[in-house]
Amino acid sequence: MSYDTDNIFAKILRGEIPSFKVYEDDETFAFMDIMPRSPGHCLVIPKTPCRNILDASPEQLAACMRTVNTLANGAMKAFGADGITLQQFSEAAGGQEVFHLHFHILPRHEGQRMGPAGVMGDMAEIKANGEKLTAALH
Amino acid sequence: MSYDTDNIFAKILRGEIPSFKVYEDDETFAFMDIMPRSPGHCLVIPKTPCRNILDASPEQLAACMRTVNTLANGAMKAFGADGITLQQFSEAAGGQEVFHLHFHILPRHEGQRMGPAGVMGDMAEIKANGEKLTAALH
Repeated sequence: MSYDTDNIFAKILRGEIPSFKVYEDDETFAFMDIMPRSPGHCLVIPKTPCRNILDASPEQLAACMRTVNTLANGAMKAFGADGITLQQFSEAAGGQEVFHLHFHILPRHEGQRMGPAGVMGDMAEIKANGEKLTAALH
Repeated sequence: MSYDTDNIFAKILRGEIPSFKVYEDDETFAFMDIMPRSPGHCLVIPKTPCRNILDASPEQLAACMRTVNTLANGAMKAFGADGITLQQFSEAAGGQEVFHLHFHILPRHEGQRMGPAGVMGDMAEIKANGEKLTAALH
């Protein structure tokens, strides 16, 4: 399987499509999922191209996981979360819809189920949650 | 949250409880999930203690992800899978039941849903799938 440079996350990385950015370093970029399955649901991606877990390099994976750790702890604080669910989907059968490696970070609260996939969220709320998360990282 | 040295994966690492091992290196250990949500469902854990994504070190995460990449590719081959779903749960609210960091690797096939969580699988089938997976890594 090859990497399509026109996937939506590649466009976000190139600044061709806007996103609610929450974190960035030399190797990774993180932004809010606009179809959140829990309040504060965000995504971590490598800045360099790869399709998913199957073709990712050890360096890309290590960098993403450093950022996942940072954001997961930030989300616990920002949203008073009780736990985190991490998901990563590889290929369509695995649940993947955008073919640039990404990790889903879902802040969770006791007794609250994840919402359904594929439902567009409220943009003002997503923006506000992104700001809360960014603030918790500092 | 602290690390409980009597969790079941710590016991597996110490050899106090048996497991269907599929892979091992200096830093990580991988074995079959006995409550598989898809055929070939396996788990990757670090050999050193940590509770989950929140307290894992960059080194533990990097090592686990190298093994996840190896096993995900092996599972694609071993089971003729069409994709992989990766899950990691942190704290009970995040879905965690055993408090030693672990990554779930679920081989997926087009049109087949994941089975329910918490249902004990057929041990002979799990053992056979573990052997298939190990063979595909060589």
